Amino acid sequence: MLHDVFSKYNAQFFVMYASSKNPNFYYATKFRVPDPVFYMVGDDGTELLVVPEMERRRAEKESRVREIASLNDIGYYERFSESGDPKTALAETYINLIKSHHGKRILVPDDFPAFFFKKFSDELEVDVIENPFSVMRAVKRADEIENIKQVSDAIIQTFRYFVKIVKKDRNSNSLRRKVESFLYSRGFVAADTIISGDLESSDPHCIGHGEFSSHVIFDVFPKSRSSGYHSDFTRTVVLEKNQEIEEMIDACIDAKKRAVERIREGVTGEEIHLLVCDVLESYGYSTLRQKAREGFIHSTGHGVGLEIHEKPKLYEKGELLKSGMVITVEPGLYYEKVGGVRVEDTVVVRKKGCEILTEFDDKVRMVE
Amino acid sequence: MLHDVFSKYNAQFFVMYASSKNPNFYYATKFRVPDPVFYMVGDDGTELLVVPEMERRRAEKESRVREIASLNDIGYYERFSESGDPKTALAETYINLIKSHHGKRILVPDDFPAFFFKKFSDELEVDVIENPFSVMRAVKRADEIENIKQVSDAIIQTFRYFVKIVKKDRNSNSLRRKVESFLYSRGFVAADTIISGDLESSDPHCIGHGEFSSHVIFDVFPKSRSSGYHSDFTRTVVLEKNQEIEEMIDACIDAKKRAVERIREGVTGEEIHLLVCDVLESYGYSTLRQKAREGFIHSTGHGVGLEIHEKPKLYEKGELLKSGMVITVEPGLYYEKVGGVRVEDTVVVRKKGCEILTEFDDKVRMVE
Repeated sequence: MLHDVFSKYNAQFFVMYASSKNPNFYYATKFRVPDPVFYMVGDDGTELLVVPEMERRRAEKESRVREIASLNDIGYYERFSESGDPKTALAETYINLIKSHHGKRILVPDDFPAFFFKKFSDELEVDVIENPFSVMRAVKRADEIENIKQVSDAIIQTFRYFVKIVKKDRNSNSLRRKVESFLYSRGFVAADTIISGDLESSDPHCIGHGEFSSHVIFDVFPKSRSSGYHSDFTRTVVLEKNQEIEEMIDACIDAKKRAVERIREGVTGEEIHLLVCDVLESYGYSTLRQKAREGFIHSTGHGVGLEIHEKPKLYEKGELLKSGMVITVEPGLYYEKVGGVRVEDTVVVRKKGCEILTEFDDKVRMVE
Repeated sequence: MLHDVFSKYNAQFFVMYASSKNPNFYYATKFRVPDPVFYMVGDDGTELLVVPEMERRRAEKESRVREIASLNDIGYYERFSESGDPKTALAETYINLIKSHHGKRILVPDDFPAFFFKKFSDELEVDVIENPFSVMRAVKRADEIENIKQVSDAIIQTFRYFVKIVKKDRNSNSLRRKVESFLYSRGFVAADTIISGDLESSDPHCIGHGEFSSHVIFDVFPKSRSSGYHSDFTRTVVLEKNQEIEEMIDACIDAKKRAVERIREGVTGEEIHLLVCDVLESYGYSTLRQKAREGFIHSTGHGVGLEIHEKPKLYEKGELLKSGMVITVEPGLYYEKVGGVRVEDTVVVRKKGCEILTEFDDKVRMVE
């Protein structure tokens, strides 16, 4: 894959400046490091990680990159003493390193820092491209799918727990604390878990703060503390008879079902999104493609992996789906005066269909 | 502060493209949002946040930015339909927005994404600067110091707990699980807590994996789940008589003490770092400024706040210290064949000295 990219741009190297908070960096290097470091990979077989002296031996042991250099090794401190500006000295050191490897034209990702991009552009030809690792990451290996399955299983366990405690506790903050602690003690960390009821639920990303009585959106997207992978799941629990809300949920369930039936290798994310819009519009709800400010006002879904939102997207211009992609399907409807609902599963795309990782009843009705 | 920056560069706007994972974005907007959005602030009083439709009402309620626009409002979807590339359409939409506000010369931070920098540079004059919010963030308000104090108190409670359990448990992985759970249940989230003993401790950022018997570095830097602020603390616990290790600890304690005595408004981070190097070298240990690969191979400290590593730095060319800055002081010594030690406190810089937030005995000896 990288070879094709080098050929396409007639470039010798792809470089990143990032810490392991950046999933593309972590995926490429398997190295956990709190502050940004320099990574370069070349069509000539070079693969090099440049780290501060204090990280050198650990990088040699822990990262999957063959060649490690410390800033000490490549003359950074001389440049630092001369220029007095650490960032300028870093830029000069990296440029010199690229040139000493016969690099003339290099590739950097979309999110490469502007400071280095500008400095590099003075001395090298630099093309900005979509990060090839984010493209690779979209299709998961079997071990990655296994990691996402583990998170999915923990989510379903957590939702069963939620369904029990929501019988007595109707406070978003209190429920979120309990849900996140339940997950943490099992090895998963969740933040900003959405437990938003009644009218608060009409903002899709409102995490919920107060008491509720009619219905509640439960949307959790934890990360495994050991593997770093995520999964994503939403159900809307009906607590009181509420025809308008229940009809909205039924429409979302129908849209999700129709989308899941269509998902397979070879269809596009756009096709799935437009299908969901068609279904919801057929019930009389408005959608973003009609420029609506209420109704279905977000995309149908997104890839899930080391990031909670990653490639591919299920939206207009959404990419071709491939076997091994892990994606969410999450139709939702939001009306300021009525409230919001959402129903979401995480699924693996397969050759002839898809596999749901977060199996649970779509309709959760607890009206007495 | 921003006004001075605009004057210096003769620019009309400063812009960011970031999510709330970026502490400068969060500090400026007080808006939690999972995916990057566009923020612009101008010398003419303009302050504007551009969000997807699904975040619009929440941004109006939750962010501190006065003016909110959705992508819907400013013609993004027309451009998206035309170009078919979401990032290009975003760039064009933002450029048009800046021009419609009479922006000709704009400022972007060091870490502004290269993709947008390149597009913007085709149509505007763009200067890359150190993020003014990261400069502002270095000096803490009283409420921020209060947040850091709360984390510091939790750390000391946690270390007391660690000192108890390490009597019986000598496994890094098991201890880290217990320590991080202890913190989580009190409202703080910690990851990559360093509990590294014996020879593993010779890599400063090795988190520790195995059994140990001689000594152990305990280094924890949790984040408050409510406020988002951090604190940072390290002690090296001696478990068996080990003269070499104890002498290294004593040297670090002396270096930390001398640094703490010197810290006050008006001295530079560089001065403190060079003092620590002087002290450690006077004991016969090697340092990075001598290009050593062992000994004291990192900086003396860093600012602590919304990020665990932020401005100022206590290192060569380190900034002038100002009252209200919160910094770590953390001399350490690392030798591959002996092991590592580190002693660290978080302190607030004051006019005439500094205040230690993580008060605990420097020497922790549990030899029977």
